[in-house]
Order: sequence, then structure tokens, then C-alpha cells
Amino acid sequence: MTTTHTVQQIMQQLGEQARQAAGTMRMVDTEAKNSALMKGAALLAREKQEIIAANALDMQAGRDNGLDAAMLDRLELTASRIEAMALGLEQIAALPDPVGEISDLVFRPSGIQVGHMRVPLGVIGIIYESRPNVTADAAALCLKSGNAVILRGGSEAIHSNRAIAGVLRRALLDCGLPQDAVQLVDSTDRALVGELIKAEKYVDVIIPRGGKSLIERISAEARVPVIKHLDGICHVYVDSAADLQMATKIAVNAKMHRTGVCNAMETLLVHAAVAGEFLPVMAEALDKAGASLRGCARSRALVPSMQAATDADWDTEYLDAILSVRVVDSLDEAIAHIAAHGSAHTESIITADYAAGMRFLREVDSSSVMWNASTRFADGFEYGLGAEIGISTDRLHVRGPVGLHGLTTQKWIVLGHGEIRG
Amino acid sequence: MTTTHTVQQIMQQLGEQARQAAGTMRMVDTEAKNSALMKGAALLAREKQEIIAANALDMQAGRDNGLDAAMLDRLELTASRIEAMALGLEQIAALPDPVGEISDLVFRPSGIQVGHMRVPLGVIGIIYESRPNVTADAAALCLKSGNAVILRGGSEAIHSNRAIAGVLRRALLDCGLPQDAVQLVDSTDRALVGELIKAEKYVDVIIPRGGKSLIERISAEARVPVIKHLDGICHVYVDSAADLQMATKIAVNAKMHRTGVCNAMETLLVHAAVAGEFLPVMAEALDKAGASLRGCARSRALVPSMQAATDADWDTEYLDAILSVRVVDSLDEAIAHIAAHGSAHTESIITADYAAGMRFLREVDSSSVMWNASTRFADGFEYGLGAEIGISTDRLHVRGPVGLHGLTTQKWIVLGHGEIRG
Repeated sequence: MTTTHTVQQIMQQLGEQARQAAGTMRMVDTEAKNSALMKGAALLAREKQEIIAANALDMQAGRDNGLDAAMLDRLELTASRIEAMALGLEQIAALPDPVGEISDLVFRPSGIQVGHMRVPLGVIGIIYESRPNVTADAAALCLKSGNAVILRGGSEAIHSNRAIAGVLRRALLDCGLPQDAVQLVDSTDRALVGELIKAEKYVDVIIPRGGKSLIERISAEARVPVIKHLDGICHVYVDSAADLQMATKIAVNAKMHRTGVCNAMETLLVHAAVAGEFLPVMAEALDKAGASLRGCARSRALVPSMQAATDADWDTEYLDAILSVRVVDSLDEAIAHIAAHGSAHTESIITADYAAGMRFLREVDSSSVMWNASTRFADGFEYGLGAEIGISTDRLHVRGPVGLHGLTTQKWIVLGHGEIRG
Repeated sequence: MTTTHTVQQIMQQLGEQARQAAGTMRMVDTEAKNSALMKGAALLAREKQEIIAANALDMQAGRDNGLDAAMLDRLELTASRIEAMALGLEQIAALPDPVGEISDLVFRPSGIQVGHMRVPLGVIGIIYESRPNVTADAAALCLKSGNAVILRGGSEAIHSNRAIAGVLRRALLDCGLPQDAVQLVDSTDRALVGELIKAEKYVDVIIPRGGKSLIERISAEARVPVIKHLDGICHVYVDSAADLQMATKIAVNAKMHRTGVCNAMETLLVHAAVAGEFLPVMAEALDKAGASLRGCARSRALVPSMQAATDADWDTEYLDAILSVRVVDSLDEAIAHIAAHGSAHTESIITADYAAGMRFLREVDSSSVMWNASTRFADGFEYGLGAEIGISTDRLHVRGPVGLHGLTTQKWIVLGHGEIRG
């Protein structure tokens, strides 16, 4: 265990190195960044055996420490998982470079042209748990967006993360870029997380990836701005004017396509006018797909096989094949339920009615609001971002899936011809 | 002096009322918001005498408390200043409404259409010093952008602010909008500032307007995100390929058009190749305009009348008719000087050389970067924002002049036709 003094020294050194690397990275051209990503992909493939050997140390320690099967599965690196990481780097190399993008350039009456230029954020801190592939994915997105990154992975994956970060640093060096654009906090001392999230001088934004309790702790203590989401209590509202076949198909997909993810539906709201026709059909389809339903009294009057929902159900992210179901009397009641119980992640209305759809789009205050689509689409790849470093349910800077653009900011540029202010 | 307990209760009440008003305001249509602004303008004009009478109480207290002439001038409300406030409200009513703006809507391969919709931030806290016109300006911008605002003005202006906020609240009520969309912290207890900047539950962003020490204190203690700038140490760099007549004209304007403002030039950097021809002409022009110059040794060798600059000069925001001048040997040295001594506010290069201009635009990491234009243009009106609530030199959410768009955020919208994720 390192002393507090040493922890601060480690952070200072990481921070100064990151700042210096960020100063170079923000000016590096697209070609150099892509070369480093392609080189990283090639090195990951070439050093597969070394990475698997490092991972074996983590797996052994994990087994010794009694990690459960799901955690061991998340921790494990196989040849195909390393190939997927390498492919991910190549895909990020293929994305357009957001840095230097000039937009909105307009002439003003004074004669100057005013617009925006997209620039990197600077230094990004990523705090994550067991999956070692985050090391490669997150570093690649930060690198492509011209930032420097400080990675703090879970202690259970330290050998794997060290091997992967080492490969990426060698790729940077091979391409003449600063190695310190990718730094791994090479210590399992938890005090370093505390230092990292308070290092306003060195770090511009923190992106935590992991369980809710980790993210809550980080948000409560951070001085550096945090891009995050806590829950994904996503709703689908089946309006009185819904195409009910469409609604059933979307309900099954939103709940059962993958149950352990933040954009899965947790609560289904149904307008009373169609509940009688819709709920039995929907319940049968979801039952066949393996879901168990918990309904309000009115839902259960129509589908008696449902369990009774308690008040706690409306505020629960099951992350499982469970769905809460509630009958509402109006669009207003649906919107009010979402405002009271939602997590500002993703909600969808199923309706053929223009006015209802437009009101839902406008009035529901979530990071993604959908109309006649499955909540499962709330994803960086599906939205066309190419990749995703996380999801934000915060209001400032970026909301919803965060890709390369979310890792940048804009400055104003002014192009003049000698104009002075009169 | 209220007790801590009471201060927390006051904040809770303000916060709950603001949250509720924000929930309504974000859905209010453009017409209703504009009506309230026009009504506010009419009421300000009609109640001019009452506002002047309230202001007289503040002026008398200010004189009794020994405020200096400049502070009393900032505090004073005259008929023409009240008319200007009313005109400001009308101008904000005439601006396009950013809320509900849909952009970037593209079809994805899955069939869904994905885009952005602009939405209000929620509740905005404004903390400001003596000028009572900020009460009207800031409230109007928050109202037009669909937000609720909690205003905390200087204690020296409490009677004036109360009168102005009262007028705006009546205008909201007259137009059927929630009065609590505009709330004034009607207490001079400083502990309320501390509560306001920590009220994460109720306030989405704090915008401080005032002196550097106020803003530093707020930033250090806030839990709510702060949109701010501290210094405006703005640079003009006269490149070796500059049109020297243009450079002189811009130097005089950037320094002397208004000296007490954050976008005034504080340091002039000159390439050595043109220093001999440029500096004497520039110095004569600035001298004639009333500026006093402080130069590096090489500058003084060319213009011996300059005072010697000390190291502290490069880090000083004079806010006065004083300019520091330094000769540099290259564009790189100019960029390095700005990185070391600038405040990330506004910098301008004067050059006819494409490569130098493009490098400066790209490599200088300030919220506004200009080419052949006076730094004085860094302003919401000049940039076409219509109005400005402040300037940000931070990296997240918004940089440079902040107008209506800076008071909003975006959510993703998805328009589907029954698509599910495969």
C-alpha cells in the first residue's frame, strides 16, 4: 500500500505527462492518429499470446478470490476477444476525424466570418471495472479525438490492462506520437481513484464505466466534471392510437433482445383504451419469450397471470427478464409517470397519432426520446457515432450515447479582413 | 441575519418552485414566451418612476456606505437605462426560439431516423454584482430559452432588483406563465450564495457575473456546474506576413476601443522580421490614442519611450489603457507565449500568410481564435447570438460568448416505423 504522499506524487506525474501529451495530440493530423490505431490493432493481433498469458494471471487471481462465473466471463480474454479488440481499433481508425471540423461559418454585418472549430477536450480519465477490452476501446476513442487518456481499470484486471495499454503505448511510440497519450494507473491503490477525480488541474473530464454504486461514489466526490448515467429505467408507452402489432413486436424486442443492458425496457405503459385488446396478446408474446410480468391492478384484471407490481417496481431497473406493466388513462398520465419514475435514459411512444407523437417527443425529458422504435436503438453504433464510450443522462455538454464528438468541444473562429469594432 | 436552518429552507423553497416552473416553461410555446417578454418591456416602461424610486434607496445606501463614483454609476438607474432594459427584452423576444429545434436528422441503415432536439437546461442560477440591468437581461434570456432562473444580485442593488424582478413576475402572471420562472433571492444573507451553488438537486448550472474574486470563490465551492471566465488576457500576434497598416488599425482598436472589458487586447506579440518597421508606427498610434506601453528589451530597443515590462506584465489583465509588447522570433514562439500566459479567452493573428493563419486557428487553444480581426469582436451580439449572458473559457458544454443556445442542451430523438433491433 502506497502512502498518501506517494499517491499524490503518482497523480501529479500522470497528470503532467498527460497534459504534455494532450498538448501534442490535439495538433496531430488524422493520418498519424489512424496509423497509431492501425499499428495498435496489428500489435494486439501479434501479441495475442502474451496478452492471454497476462490475462491468465488475472483469471487465476479471480478464481482464488472467489469471483463468480459472470465476473470471470467478463474478465476473460480469448483469441477471438482480442481479435475483436483489434477490429475495434481498425473501425475507429476508419471513422471521420472530428478534430478541426469547421461549421456554421457565417458572414456578419461587420464583415467578419464567425463559426466553430471542433477541438479535443484535453485529458480524459476513464474509471472502469472488470472488462479489459475497455482499455483498448476507450483509449482508441480518446486517441482518435485528439485527447490524452488516463485509464484506471479494475484491480482484478491489472495484468490484462497493463498488457493492452503497453501495446497501445508502443504503437504510439512507433508512429512518433507521445506514449503518454495513453497512460494506465499502474497501481491497485484505491486512493488513486480519489486523486484522479479531484485532479482538476490535470483532468478535463471523468467517464466512469461500471456499476451504479461506483458511479454514485465518483459523482459525489469528483471535482472534475463527470459524464455518466446511473440507471436505465426505460419506458415504452403504447398509445390509444398505437398499431398494436407493432407495439407487441417492439415490446418483445425492447425487453428481451438483451435484458442486462441499460437501454432495455423496464416498464410498459398502456393506454386504457387499448389495454383490453393489447395486454393479453403482449403478455402471451412476452411470456413465450421468457419474461415475467408484474402489473398494476388494472393490468392484472386483464391478464390475471401477472404478479402484482409494488410501488418499488416503478423505480426498479431489473436488468433481467422482468417487466412492470401499468395501464394509464392518457398521454399526460404516461408522461407524468415517466417524469416521476424514469431515469432520463430512453423512452419510446408507439402511436400512429401525429399530435401524440410530437407531444411525447417534445415533453419527455430524456436523453433519447423515440417514436415507434425499440429502446434498444439507444446506442452509439445504432445512432451512427461509429462507437460509444458511454451514455450520459446529464444535461451539460453531452446527452445520450457519447462518441467521438462527445470527447471534443468547440471553439469560435473568426476570419476577418482587417475589421475593427466600431 | 437568518439562521443556517432558515437559509436551507429558503433555498429549498426557491429550488422547488424553480423546478416546478421549469417543468412548465420547457413546454411553453414561443408565442407565450414572447408575449411575456413584450409585456415585461411594457411594464418596465410604465413603472419607470417606481423603479427609479426603488433605485434611489440603493443609491442613498450606496452613498452612505461610501461606494465610489464608478460603483454608484453602475448602480444607478435612469429613465434611459430603464428604456434600454425594456428594449433589450423586446430584442430577446425578436430572437428565434432555440427550443424544439430539430437538427442532424439522418436515416440509419436500420430504418430509424436519428437526430437532435434542442431543449432547455432547466434551472439556472445567476450570481451577479452591482448592475441592476442584469436582472432584466439575464431573466429574459433564461425565459426565452425555456428555463427557470434564480437571481442573486448584489446586496447594494436589492431594492432595484426587487422592483425589476417584480415587474417580470407580473408579466409572466399576466401571460398565464408561472411567476416562479423568475425568482430573486430576496435576502442579502451571503450564506444563500453558498446554498445556491451547492443545490445540485434544484439548479442545473450557475452563471456568475462579476469580479474575478467572486467567480473564483464560487468555482472553488460550487457543486453545481459553473459557466464562467476568470481573466481576459487577450493577445494580438503580428506575423512576419502581416499587412502592417491593418495591424496598426487592429492594435489600436483591440486596445483602446474599450479598455475595461474582457475582450480588450492586453499583450501584443510582434514577429522580429517586421518589428523594426511596425513597432514605431504602432507605438505612435497607440500613444496618440492614449495608451501607455510596456515592452520587452527588444521592443524597447526599437521604441525607447516604452517602459520596461516585467515578468508579471505577461500575466496581467490591465483592464486599462496599458499594453505589454513583446518581440518573438517565430509563430511557434507566439503560440507558446499565448499557451503560457493567455487565459483562453480571445487571441488574433494578423497575417496574409495562409499557412500561418491556419496554424494559429488550429493550434491556439482559446475560446475565440481570430485571423485579421480585432479581439473586440468576441461578443454575443457581434457573433450573431443576439444577446449574451456571459462568456465561458471552460471546455465543457459551451465556450466563448454564451447566448440562448448556451442556455439549452440537446436530446436525441428517434423517429421509427416499428423498427426493432436485430
